Amino acid sequence: MEIPNRELFGPGPTNVPNSVLQALSQPTIGHLDPEFLKLMDEVGDKTKYSFQTENALTFVLSAPGSIGMETSFVNIVEPGDKVITCINGVFGGRMQAICQKIGASVVTIENEWGTPVDVEQLAETLQQHPDAKIVAFVHAETSTGVRSDAQAIAALARQNDCLVVADCVTSLAGVELRVDDWGLDVAYSGSQKCLSCVPGLSPITFSQKAVDTIKRRKTPVVSWFCDVSLLMSYYESGEKTRAYHHTAPVNSLYAINEALSLVVDETLESRWLRHQDAANHLYSKLEAAGLEMLVVPEHRLAPLTLVRIPDGVDDAAVRGSLLANRNIELGGGLGKFAGEAWRIGLMGQNASVDRADFISDALIAELGKR
Amino acid sequence: MEIPNRELFGPGPTNVPNSVLQALSQPTIGHLDPEFLKLMDEVGDKTKYSFQTENALTFVLSAPGSIGMETSFVNIVEPGDKVITCINGVFGGRMQAICQKIGASVVTIENEWGTPVDVEQLAETLQQHPDAKIVAFVHAETSTGVRSDAQAIAALARQNDCLVVADCVTSLAGVELRVDDWGLDVAYSGSQKCLSCVPGLSPITFSQKAVDTIKRRKTPVVSWFCDVSLLMSYYESGEKTRAYHHTAPVNSLYAINEALSLVVDETLESRWLRHQDAANHLYSKLEAAGLEMLVVPEHRLAPLTLVRIPDGVDDAAVRGSLLANRNIELGGGLGKFAGEAWRIGLMGQNASVDRADFISDALIAELGKR
Repeated sequence: MEIPNRELFGPGPTNVPNSVLQALSQPTIGHLDPEFLKLMDEVGDKTKYSFQTENALTFVLSAPGSIGMETSFVNIVEPGDKVITCINGVFGGRMQAICQKIGASVVTIENEWGTPVDVEQLAETLQQHPDAKIVAFVHAETSTGVRSDAQAIAALARQNDCLVVADCVTSLAGVELRVDDWGLDVAYSGSQKCLSCVPGLSPITFSQKAVDTIKRRKTPVVSWFCDVSLLMSYYESGEKTRAYHHTAPVNSLYAINEALSLVVDETLESRWLRHQDAANHLYSKLEAAGLEMLVVPEHRLAPLTLVRIPDGVDDAAVRGSLLANRNIELGGGLGKFAGEAWRIGLMGQNASVDRADFISDALIAELGKR
Repeated sequence: MEIPNRELFGPGPTNVPNSVLQALSQPTIGHLDPEFLKLMDEVGDKTKYSFQTENALTFVLSAPGSIGMETSFVNIVEPGDKVITCINGVFGGRMQAICQKIGASVVTIENEWGTPVDVEQLAETLQQHPDAKIVAFVHAETSTGVRSDAQAIAALARQNDCLVVADCVTSLAGVELRVDDWGLDVAYSGSQKCLSCVPGLSPITFSQKAVDTIKRRKTPVVSWFCDVSLLMSYYESGEKTRAYHHTAPVNSLYAINEALSLVVDETLESRWLRHQDAANHLYSKLEAAGLEMLVVPEHRLAPLTLVRIPDGVDDAAVRGSLLANRNIELGGGLGKFAGEAWRIGLMGQNASVDRADFISDALIAELGKR
């Protein structure tokens, strides 16, 4: 089957560097092979760097980002635990759904789509619910292009003795993220966004406090696949050897090892800056053409920009034409924003001023035809 | 990182054909791209062929085989449901563990490791438990190299109005498997065994009776990631379009599309025969050298052979030497068979008389040195 060469400017996957695709297609080896265990050590160390953490239990889950979300909650939440979920888009809503499935007592704070989590409102909610055990929020909402203040949310949650769960799917390696300094207890991401890797993996990290919570559970974790207690002994043995309790997705791990190496080589600080520079260029080009960003400047998420679809413009026709004629994928709106906004991703390899030029020129030209 | 070229004769992954690795490293496209949806249609059709089923809800899960097991049970089992799990190795035991986590009332029948599920014993157990809702068993036990009589087990279960769940991780595309003719309601597999694909995916199929059971659930499915009701509308719409409710592992799906094409081109019947011919050659070579197979001929699983480790031979030293000196991975024993048996896989690309010659010559030479 012939796969077209797409320019990926949607909400992820983004384009994958050739070196990552080459790593992906190296010959498969066994998941118990000593060479594979060495690779796991490397992947673990680079994942720690990317999350800015020293957490021992830091690894890559064998499935897409939504398994990161599920793994976070099924391990630290027990039935009846009170969880405050902050909802300002699709993925906060998914957190709520997963916690409800586990039988948690879920308290939600809801903020307007396109705005960040309201830290004042969270403070009030924490006061009203002193028995809350966990605060969960989305650092970078992929449905709205909003960045919330993870540092402030985490500080507040910890003052109230809560564990903090952060969805970092669209922030890891794209915007500032400091798991240890900010005090995030569980953070997870996806491979296909700012890491510029193939989709299908989910890096995750658990703090010692999260690990202790898991060890003190009174009820078993309801999922076998997501049960990290089946892995913890490997990470606590003092040896560096990492292992899975299932067949590891060996080739995908070659790919993320290379993708993470690119992050280490570039340094996180440069990478965050590169994403911001690209986004700034995109904003100014689109605004100069009369287009409107959906999120106010101070809450914008550099890797993903929401642009209001101008009145009278046919959303599907624009995206269809860009795809058919120019091999460009532009993201459609999700949930409440379907038909109202486009989502333009400048992630990983595509986070550059050149690529921002390319996509804004293409979109402006397409709109000019109409 | 330099990846060695291993000869993979363990319990999987097996060696992956170059065409599959090439497909894997095609450029990534979006999971909502019309070209990707076409690919999903192709993958779905070839998966149906491989399982020998017309089930509409037949697709590839975005994680390794153990997610296939978990997805099977979390969807059709509700707390309190009686499930008969047949245990004759590690993977039957895992079925039991997963069902217990869901809160099922689990009845087990246990058979000696190295022997198949005892159909008579299952008949008695079904008589003792007329309220049983599900019978679950492992068609091809990867820990013991035993093939159970799936057809007889399924017939018996259905006479007793039970749904049938079959673990086909090491049987799909390697030994005879006929989901519709035999009446299996849920069957799942892994990509890295007889399909000769990279590890990390799990093909699965649900019968209409299984789908109806899911629709009649009184309690929600406890997992979000594994909840197939979130996918069923796509498969029931009458349109062929398949979709995921999460980011699909796009590149891995390119790979399994190619691996499944190789199955279709070869035909299942030829592929089953090829696996059997290779295994027969292996048995006769090893037996001629004085080695003993652990399973009696009529219950042997062609893709995976258990060979008793001769008295006084150092298991780890033999496997270590084969790996270090000849790049050969031979499988160690698992669970009760650790240190007692080697597991020799002749799966997918490696299921040939030539490859059987290669691995048996290598093992015999290695033993000759000692």
